[in-house]
Amino acid sequence: MVSDYPNVVILVGGSGGVKLAHGLALALPPEKLTVVVNTGDDFWHYGLRICPDLDTLLYTLSGQVNREHGWGISGDTTVALNTLRTLGDDTWFTLGDRDLATHLRRTQLWHEGHTLTQIAGMLGAALGIESRILPMTDSPVATIVETAELGDLPFQTYFVRHRWQPTVRAVRYDGIEAARLSPELVAALQDANVIILGPSNPWLSIDPILAVPGMREAIRASRAHCIAVTPIVGGDAVKGPTARLMRDWGLALEPQTIADHYAGLIDGFVADQRDESTAPDGIAWLTADTMMTTDEDRLRVARVVLDWAADFSRAPRT
Amino acid sequence: MVSDYPNVVILVGGSGGVKLAHGLALALPPEKLTVVVNTGDDFWHYGLRICPDLDTLLYTLSGQVNREHGWGISGDTTVALNTLRTLGDDTWFTLGDRDLATHLRRTQLWHEGHTLTQIAGMLGAALGIESRILPMTDSPVATIVETAELGDLPFQTYFVRHRWQPTVRAVRYDGIEAARLSPELVAALQDANVIILGPSNPWLSIDPILAVPGMREAIRASRAHCIAVTPIVGGDAVKGPTARLMRDWGLALEPQTIADHYAGLIDGFVADQRDESTAPDGIAWLTADTMMTTDEDRLRVARVVLDWAADFSRAPRT
Repeated sequence: MVSDYPNVVILVGGSGGVKLAHGLALALPPEKLTVVVNTGDDFWHYGLRICPDLDTLLYTLSGQVNREHGWGISGDTTVALNTLRTLGDDTWFTLGDRDLATHLRRTQLWHEGHTLTQIAGMLGAALGIESRILPMTDSPVATIVETAELGDLPFQTYFVRHRWQPTVRAVRYDGIEAARLSPELVAALQDANVIILGPSNPWLSIDPILAVPGMREAIRASRAHCIAVTPIVGGDAVKGPTARLMRDWGLALEPQTIADHYAGLIDGFVADQRDESTAPDGIAWLTADTMMTTDEDRLRVARVVLDWAADFSRAPRT
Repeated sequence: MVSDYPNVVILVGGSGGVKLAHGLALALPPEKLTVVVNTGDDFWHYGLRICPDLDTLLYTLSGQVNREHGWGISGDTTVALNTLRTLGDDTWFTLGDRDLATHLRRTQLWHEGHTLTQIAGMLGAALGIESRILPMTDSPVATIVETAELGDLPFQTYFVRHRWQPTVRAVRYDGIEAARLSPELVAALQDANVIILGPSNPWLSIDPILAVPGMREAIRASRAHCIAVTPIVGGDAVKGPTARLMRDWGLALEPQTIADHYAGLIDGFVADQRDESTAPDGIAWLTADTMMTTDEDRLRVARVVLDWAADFSRAPRT
């Protein structure tokens, strides 16, 4: 029965969170899933509006993603990029030819006055995605990484151009004070039975979403239980700069660190079975195999989280 | 001896004028040739700054142009464009993947604060073009075609989207009052020995250039003789809407009509031998085979014009 499925909202960045969103899309009827995506990485490049996390989500949910990279489109060509190099451009940000079409279409719609929420909906529909994809806000927000070696860097400059090698002193989200939750996102949070903080980087991917004014309050005010899934597996990050950041900041590379980071917001935490862990006070704890390589892995982890959430919901939220 | 070559400035749009510019590039040492290109067709599309006439010139002078079309790059692919169509875009303006690189690079340089004159120089250098290419102005100017059926249309909407089929009532150049000649263009006109109005559409391609404030005065003040080459061959236009415009406006489809249009500015006019023609008062007249299909044709026509200009320059300008 469709009515047995909860309304699920998951917050994601670009890598682990998207894989779990994919698992949820495989597990749930599409109308039951809303994916809220970080837009702090978005930037203007060659005059195009590029939304890396949104695009990884679009390409993954539509089955187009290049699984080897975890971003971009499988089998894409780079004719434009190769030509750009001959024109003297340093082409530090890879744009495939099919991928370029996404940026061109989005930028055209942007200049026509559509919100990013509307654009994400149009792109998702064109790619046959039936689950709802919502940017964390339609307001412009830019994640700025304050580095020891190179000063303030826009996120993609830090992440792609410098391959997340500079030492991060702090992270801020420019424009966040003026950002607003979209009406669509407010409604999705109100209707949610389960809210999941995906296994993406807490500081770089999930925190920008949580920093949109009203977001934490909306999650707390929701009837939904909030569950985080660990981005730490076997004492390391599966991908990207999470472990490097935690080491630089003197944080223990264990799931409790992530749970503590989300304390006050989450009701439960899913740690990986590879890590020894102890539940912190006040947070329900589950250990499971959270690695998500194949579609079967993703579906399995999604079901673990959904089943656990169903147990939660038998008791009213405290 | 290099010093035997005159300093030549040619004004061009996107088709016939570019072919003659190509012939001149084959005939002259590169430092002797300056090509001034119409920018009234330039527009924003998908967030990119697209300069159709400049690009046809760049691709032609670098030997890359698709000769069948007369625009775009030979052998270019359309992966991005085909994908755009699947995303719901109507893709009325063709952008090849290699061609896209030009627009991406130009737009990036534009947003970095370079003038279009600087950008044209950088793109030309990257493509190995040694002759100087100068936009008619660095100010934004938009050719607007006032049509009977569809009202005011930006040039590319008229020309490409509607395949120049609407009836043209008038043409105007939005922003022209505020446009300025670049210092580079002022210097080129001052140094010129010969100024050629290329065989492009007078109203749509050459007139926008002549309408930049100070352009006509600079041509008249120059020591150079000014020669126009006919876009009418055999009682018709070689390509594009010139003949259609002239018929709609009740103008005779003969070279004299074009010469009359440029009266007061030109010293000489090169008509095609296929047309019967009579020199108007006060304009020197030459007939020749002006069709330019092959490189040899283009070189031949360039030499006809240069040889005639050399005869002119034996007498001081009146």
